[in-house]
Amino acid sequence: MTVSLDRDRFVGTMKEQAEIGATDGGGLHRLALSDDDRRARDWVHEQMEEAGLTVRVDEFGNMFGRRDGTDPDAGTVLIGSHLDSQPYGGIYDGAMGVVTALEFVRTLNDEGVETTHPVEVVNWTNEEGSRFQPAMQGSGVWAGTHDIAEEYAKTDADGNVFEEELERIGYKGSTPCKPQHDYEAYLELHIEQGPYLEENGMDVGVVTGIVGFTWGAITFYGEADHSGPTPMHYRNDALVAAADIVSQVRRIPGTLGERTVGTTGYIDSKPNSINIIPDEVTVTWGFRDPTEEVITEARDRVLAEAEAAAEREGLDWEYEDRMFVEPVHFADQCTDAVQQSADALGLDSMPIFSGAGHDATHMTRQMDTGMVFAVSEDGKSHNEDEYTSWADCCSAAETTINAAFDLATE
Amino acid sequence: MTVSLDRDRFVGTMKEQAEIGATDGGGLHRLALSDDDRRARDWVHEQMEEAGLTVRVDEFGNMFGRRDGTDPDAGTVLIGSHLDSQPYGGIYDGAMGVVTALEFVRTLNDEGVETTHPVEVVNWTNEEGSRFQPAMQGSGVWAGTHDIAEEYAKTDADGNVFEEELERIGYKGSTPCKPQHDYEAYLELHIEQGPYLEENGMDVGVVTGIVGFTWGAITFYGEADHSGPTPMHYRNDALVAAADIVSQVRRIPGTLGERTVGTTGYIDSKPNSINIIPDEVTVTWGFRDPTEEVITEARDRVLAEAEAAAEREGLDWEYEDRMFVEPVHFADQCTDAVQQSADALGLDSMPIFSGAGHDATHMTRQMDTGMVFAVSEDGKSHNEDEYTSWADCCSAAETTINAAFDLATE
Repeated sequence: MTVSLDRDRFVGTMKEQAEIGATDGGGLHRLALSDDDRRARDWVHEQMEEAGLTVRVDEFGNMFGRRDGTDPDAGTVLIGSHLDSQPYGGIYDGAMGVVTALEFVRTLNDEGVETTHPVEVVNWTNEEGSRFQPAMQGSGVWAGTHDIAEEYAKTDADGNVFEEELERIGYKGSTPCKPQHDYEAYLELHIEQGPYLEENGMDVGVVTGIVGFTWGAITFYGEADHSGPTPMHYRNDALVAAADIVSQVRRIPGTLGERTVGTTGYIDSKPNSINIIPDEVTVTWGFRDPTEEVITEARDRVLAEAEAAAEREGLDWEYEDRMFVEPVHFADQCTDAVQQSADALGLDSMPIFSGAGHDATHMTRQMDTGMVFAVSEDGKSHNEDEYTSWADCCSAAETTINAAFDLATE
Repeated sequence: MTVSLDRDRFVGTMKEQAEIGATDGGGLHRLALSDDDRRARDWVHEQMEEAGLTVRVDEFGNMFGRRDGTDPDAGTVLIGSHLDSQPYGGIYDGAMGVVTALEFVRTLNDEGVETTHPVEVVNWTNEEGSRFQPAMQGSGVWAGTHDIAEEYAKTDADGNVFEEELERIGYKGSTPCKPQHDYEAYLELHIEQGPYLEENGMDVGVVTGIVGFTWGAITFYGEADHSGPTPMHYRNDALVAAADIVSQVRRIPGTLGERTVGTTGYIDSKPNSINIIPDEVTVTWGFRDPTEEVITEARDRVLAEAEAAAEREGLDWEYEDRMFVEPVHFADQCTDAVQQSADALGLDSMPIFSGAGHDATHMTRQMDTGMVFAVSEDGKSHNEDEYTSWADCCSAAETTINAAFDLATE
């Protein structure tokens, strides 16, 4: 059997959440642990209770709404995503996964269906990682990847401490931040944030895994001389070496793999004055690929380039590994459920590897995990131009609730 | 005849000024119109009065100490430099020119000499341009290069207005900011801020002119996509194009002239997050050379590189010219006086073109101008490592006071 999405209610709920932290440009500015995040949390809390769910908030702010199943020994099916956004981000990223999870239980209620497995709707704390690092913080603590004391102590750019901000918005709950039940599976709907579904004319994506990535930073140290009277061959210009890294990070992926990407997202140059040769410049690297060997090779190559660039300019340099996440492969139980659901609904689908990290990454440590991707027009995300048509949103949501129904009832 | 420098008094006076705004690292942090600038001004005011000079402060804060000559029709010989410093700069840059000018009149007093020409010691306002732009601001207004109303309105990074800061430190004087007399010549001692004198084993430099320069900024506009799921060929990465500019600014001088230099001192990348492809990046260019054709060619080339880089990455771009200063060539009267003075003192000297701008640049619009360079160890300046041995300081100072004496008495 398939369950039907109430499309009007789903779209209405999407629009409702998009009002909280809405930007003039049609996006969302709803940073983790901000006042708007609190309002979004208050809102979803209310939605959960209205849907008859038993709500609990854990000590890291993760919010769960539970609906019992018929079999007391069956593992819980967890479904959700996150309500926080990037600075001036889009209205679909994360939020659509939470709204779809709500719609799943609302649909079960509408149709008076009892599931074998208990079902939980989840809203993870700070998936985006734009205010407090790392990204996927709440799910990472919950799954045992991160230590809660270390994460509580993290500060934002203004020096605000994570734990104090969590208390300030009233979402430091009492439940321990770890699995409180046996879990059967985790399912997350998310926008693709890439162009492949649209390029291939698909309605929905059956996500088979998530690329791994390496993040780090390289700092070059030179000499801050006057830009006028210092001859070119006397210079030790830290920015010149940093520019080489930016160029190489752009080039390296094209020598490695079809799905390899590399980005220098951050640069900081000191003293940053038009008339002084830069003497301390930090640049970041980020490489992603479905295979661990490629990620490791990309990191090795950028460090070799840093060595060469420092040698050319006569600089000292150092690097710092900031994050290494292995690629993950989703469980057959979940990808099969998603694929069968898309097929049963008559949707065009394709298997796809996620180019971005998601809370689902951490869930693979705890339970079988799967994801559904909605089409991202032009692959845009993390900005106000992020867009998915309501038709594509509904295709992904309907696929998700049917896959979740399958997992919860089998 | 030659006049003798009182070396102990000169070095003592240098050390005295170096205490005002001294840094722990042995440098100076005496930004224009700061409280330390006020203390330095109060100090030089006192020194001028003790040397019997008639002090006037103009409406832009430039300070003059006048000593009459014997010929009422003779033009004034102006001698000095500036007391403001770079952030965490050195103790010689600028200050040594003012101290030498004081020593010149003290020496005249000691020896009971009357000069034909009146002599004026000057301390120019805001030569460094690190707090308020442009550099060489006070001399520029005085010489008629800049409009005083525009310069009064300039703000620092904290939004403080130049005119209000000038009033706050009590140095908005009553004299109009323009020449109040006929001027015969301007002479300025400054450290070289480059390595040529030391490299050639010289005691002192006879400056023949000042390089011209072009300053500007290029901004690239791309797309701020998620760094993970956006394939490399979908990207419009503004930082990649900016890195090309940094590399080309490093390369272009080597294709143009022996004395050509090029610097990217400033870069600003938005949104500057490790996980987002940069969509708006500004970089500056700065090129200097003794000939105007080379400067113009360097600017043309960097703009052509910007066009090419924007095309490669699929970006929009724009540029802004920020400053264009023609090279200046000093008057024979002044370079001859400096050369003869160095020769008479038995010093090893060489003609040298200044790679940095100085207040002397603006003086060439108003009168014959010359400069004396002191050796800069390792060419360092604009940082706390700036260093000139007291022996080299004295060689340059003695050359300067003799050249000034020559100009004032002939």
